[in-house]
Amino acid sequence: VSSAAESVQTVGLFAGRHVIAELDRVDPMLLNDELFLRRAVQQVLHRAGATVLTVVSKRFCPQGVTVLALLSESHASLHTYPEFSSMFVDVFTCGTRADPERAVRLLAEALGNPPIRIETIQRGWQKDEGHT
Amino acid sequence: VSSAAESVQTVGLFAGRHVIAELDRVDPMLLNDELFLRRAVQQVLHRAGATVLTVVSKRFCPQGVTVLALLSESHASLHTYPEFSSMFVDVFTCGTRADPERAVRLLAEALGNPPIRIETIQRGWQKDEGHT
Repeated sequence: VSSAAESVQTVGLFAGRHVIAELDRVDPMLLNDELFLRRAVQQVLHRAGATVLTVVSKRFCPQGVTVLALLSESHASLHTYPEFSSMFVDVFTCGTRADPERAVRLLAEALGNPPIRIETIQRGWQKDEGHT
Repeated sequence: VSSAAESVQTVGLFAGRHVIAELDRVDPMLLNDELFLRRAVQQVLHRAGATVLTVVSKRFCPQGVTVLALLSESHASLHTYPEFSSMFVDVFTCGTRADPERAVRLLAEALGNPPIRIETIQRGWQKDEGHT
């Protein structure tokens, strides 16, 4: 189907957008809920156009959760700190189909729209840079 | 032992260093060698003071490998593009025990010291910023 062809074309460039974010004042109960966070990550990535291939997670003692998602388009991660009601989020995607900023904003929505700091880094070769 | 106590103290802050890097002119054979890359990631992270809990990887068709490592200190990732002899690397660590820049430099060493672009982002609350 056409999405496969598109995926080959756009994912095949050495370029991508890496969104790094921090969410504050999140309910600590949610930040310790490994299953909720795994599902939320999968759902928001899917809605943002990414293809999730594998998800791994770990609940730390006494608190905190890490979730990593291996994507066709690169990866996503979250690391929670319930003791500070805060979390780190990364979504790195190559190609144009997936929207990493949208994934982060959807995740914030799933967590009750907490305050968020977000930064987008362009990685790889930019259009005006070429490849020598 | 003392390292456990240290780990709790330093990993327990909402702060970390995220190193993002691009390596160019790497042997495409190595960039397609999933097992080599998995082992290299584990070794360099260990040597850089990080604790690797889980590693997942994927060999893409027709080419390219992704490796994700879930760390006690956060995560590491690499995404290879053999068709461009290039790779993206991230190492994000909380606390002071692991040295993410050292991990990236050791990885470059394992790949024959190719040209490297490296950037370090301070994440979370900085010392002068506090937490309100």
